[in-house]
Amino acid sequence: MALLFLSTPERGAVWKQVFAEAGEEIVIGADAVTDPAAITHILCWSPPGDLTLYPNLQAVICSGAGVDHIRPVPEGVALVRTLAPGIEGMVRDWVVMASLMLHRDMPAYLDQAGQGLWQEHPTRQARSRRVGIMGTGRIGRKVAETLRALDFPVLGYSRSGRPVEGLEVCGQDMLDTFLAQTDLLICLLPLTDETRGLMDAAFLAKLPKGALLVHAGRGAQLHLDALGAALDSGQIGAAMLDVTDPEPLPQDHWAWTHPKVVVTPHIGSVTDYEEGARHGLNVIRAGRAGEELPGLVDPARGY
Amino acid sequence: MALLFLSTPERGAVWKQVFAEAGEEIVIGADAVTDPAAITHILCWSPPGDLTLYPNLQAVICSGAGVDHIRPVPEGVALVRTLAPGIEGMVRDWVVMASLMLHRDMPAYLDQAGQGLWQEHPTRQARSRRVGIMGTGRIGRKVAETLRALDFPVLGYSRSGRPVEGLEVCGQDMLDTFLAQTDLLICLLPLTDETRGLMDAAFLAKLPKGALLVHAGRGAQLHLDALGAALDSGQIGAAMLDVTDPEPLPQDHWAWTHPKVVVTPHIGSVTDYEEGARHGLNVIRAGRAGEELPGLVDPARGY
Ligand SMILES: NC(=O)c1ccc[n+]([C@@H]2O[C@H](COP(=O)([O-])OP(=O)(O)OC[C@H]3O[C@@H](n4cnc5c(N)ncnc54)[C@H](OP(=O)(O)O)[C@@H]3O)[C@@H](O)[C@H]2O)c1
Ligand SMILES: NC(=O)c1ccc[n+]([C@@H]2O[C@H](COP(=O)([O-])OP(=O)(O)OC[C@H]3O[C@@H](n4cnc5c(N)ncnc54)[C@H](OP(=O)(O)O)[C@@H]3O)[C@@H](O)[C@H]2O)c1
Repeated sequence: MALLFLSTPERGAVWKQVFAEAGEEIVIGADAVTDPAAITHILCWSPPGDLTLYPNLQAVICSGAGVDHIRPVPEGVALVRTLAPGIEGMVRDWVVMASLMLHRDMPAYLDQAGQGLWQEHPTRQARSRRVGIMGTGRIGRKVAETLRALDFPVLGYSRSGRPVEGLEVCGQDMLDTFLAQTDLLICLLPLTDETRGLMDAAFLAKLPKGALLVHAGRGAQLHLDALGAALDSGQIGAAMLDVTDPEPLPQDHWAWTHPKVVVTPHIGSVTDYEEGARHGLNVIRAGRAGEELPGLVDPARGY
Repeated sequence: MALLFLSTPERGAVWKQVFAEAGEEIVIGADAVTDPAAITHILCWSPPGDLTLYPNLQAVICSGAGVDHIRPVPEGVALVRTLAPGIEGMVRDWVVMASLMLHRDMPAYLDQAGQGLWQEHPTRQARSRRVGIMGTGRIGRKVAETLRALDFPVLGYSRSGRPVEGLEVCGQDMLDTFLAQTDLLICLLPLTDETRGLMDAAFLAKLPKGALLVHAGRGAQLHLDALGAALDSGQIGAAMLDVTDPEPLPQDHWAWTHPKVVVTPHIGSVTDYEEGARHGLNVIRAGRAGEELPGLVDPARGY
């Protein structure tokens, strides 16, 4: 029973130590594999070519929080995403920062700063800015908690519509109602067949005029050109984007320098090496104990 | 017994209504005063020329949270600053936003965006960034609460060094110790004789190399040129400034376009009209009941 580690050497050094201390076997790099039958787990960002090389493979662990870029794994092999408190905290921080930047008109102030212009705009209090969070999973609910503590009224939206920790959540049949009540929209959805291309012109038109958009899900969920048109018409007031389609965003893309848009290069989170290694151990041990693997992805739902 | 209101007409309309509903007298504008002896309170941003015109004046209420711009009021007249939940919440939001922007390297990412550059920098987790808050008053303690909920270790600094709500606070004799432990410094001090010019080159040199600065106190507390030199030497990593000296910051000032600085035009808070009016009522009624006036400024301390 061994984990085959396919990621960067810096990350690998930390994993090796954590696994050694825990008395678990780890093989660093495909070239180091002597017995493919010993490999039961693979850690990777995207899986290597032929997984059938490893006859006893039990689980593929993706080193990130999303698994949309991973091709289907063979029947009988589990696909697992990384759960790490650091990932959730970091994305939460980026989303809270981005929400406050839009709430406090930072795109306009940054634009003014470029011109040396000292000019105040009217400000709203947080309690009058309704926040809508799409995706009330591990990250979405942390964001909701912080924004509620800052006095924003918060509403959630998810597949199931299940309320979480006192937060009202709309299900998929309530999307239009949810959007109509959302002054500041936060996207924290996983990329699946259902969410790909979700935010198009018709979708954006359902928000109140001048609504603000924070996008930290996946680039392919948002039509950038529809956003551009909505910004120019005033339908969308401003946007903060951590994810784009494509990534990297080409150097000459309009979004980089649009005065109502701030783009960051997918920096929401990076997985802390040690937290990632501990999650790897948790997956191996849960499997051995016959428990549900932490971070297990449902292949039908796609997340 | 009447309040003389000296501020904008829009604000005045709200005050008039709140006072009418409360059965208290208000006079809008100095020209409308028929009997100066009836004026017991004045609401203003900065007081009009000669306050001795009003023989029965009890209190001058400043419409903002700071009173540094107000000249001494006559002996026997109280100076009061506005306490409004909205002010504290808004400044808290700006400071939390600014702290997260520095924590997540936004000045560098904004600079890159201008060049269309998609490039990630290493990120630290909040728990490894020590925040130091100068001024643990009404605003500082709200900021501390939010940043602690975001997992930042937070230390306070104040005149008295009194701990507040579970927060450890250094007194004035501990300034050097406080600064040496501060990776991200937040200034929320009132401007007084003691704090004017506080943040100079020697002060900035006491911070760990590369420390970050969020300034939301008053412009005259920071030597901008010392900050510029510290940014260029790498002693200070980046800064967010909502207050400057002078204000407005001249259009050709270097700080507007320095890649490690973001300046906003003193937008931390605006007083909500109705909250301001309610504070005015509270001051009048406390005086009538012989209670301490809410927001009373100690002339000796200057805040
Ligand atoms: N920018 C970054 O650096 C970064 C970093 C990490 C993650 N992310 C993004 O954030 C996403 C969320 O992460 P997480 O850990 O919070 O995931 P999670 O715990 O799996 O939560 C996913 C949420 O999305 C909802 N959902 C899924 N499909 C939906 C659909 N078609 N319609 C409506 N709601 C749907 C789920 O609904 P149910 O509650 O009903 O299941 C759930 O609330 C990731 O998938 C990734 O795309 C971005
Ligand atoms: N940017 C904006 O738009 C904006 C808006 C509102 C306010 N502000 C600024 O924020 C300041 C603080 O507001 P607040 O409502 O929190 O005031 P506050 O409740 O009066 O608190 C002031 C704090 O500063 C401390 N302090 C005063 N002088 C000091 C000194 N010489 N050395 C060390 N500590 C000292 C006090 O110490 P003790 O606890 O020992 O008394 C107290 O903790 C205002 O005065 C204003 O300058 C800015």
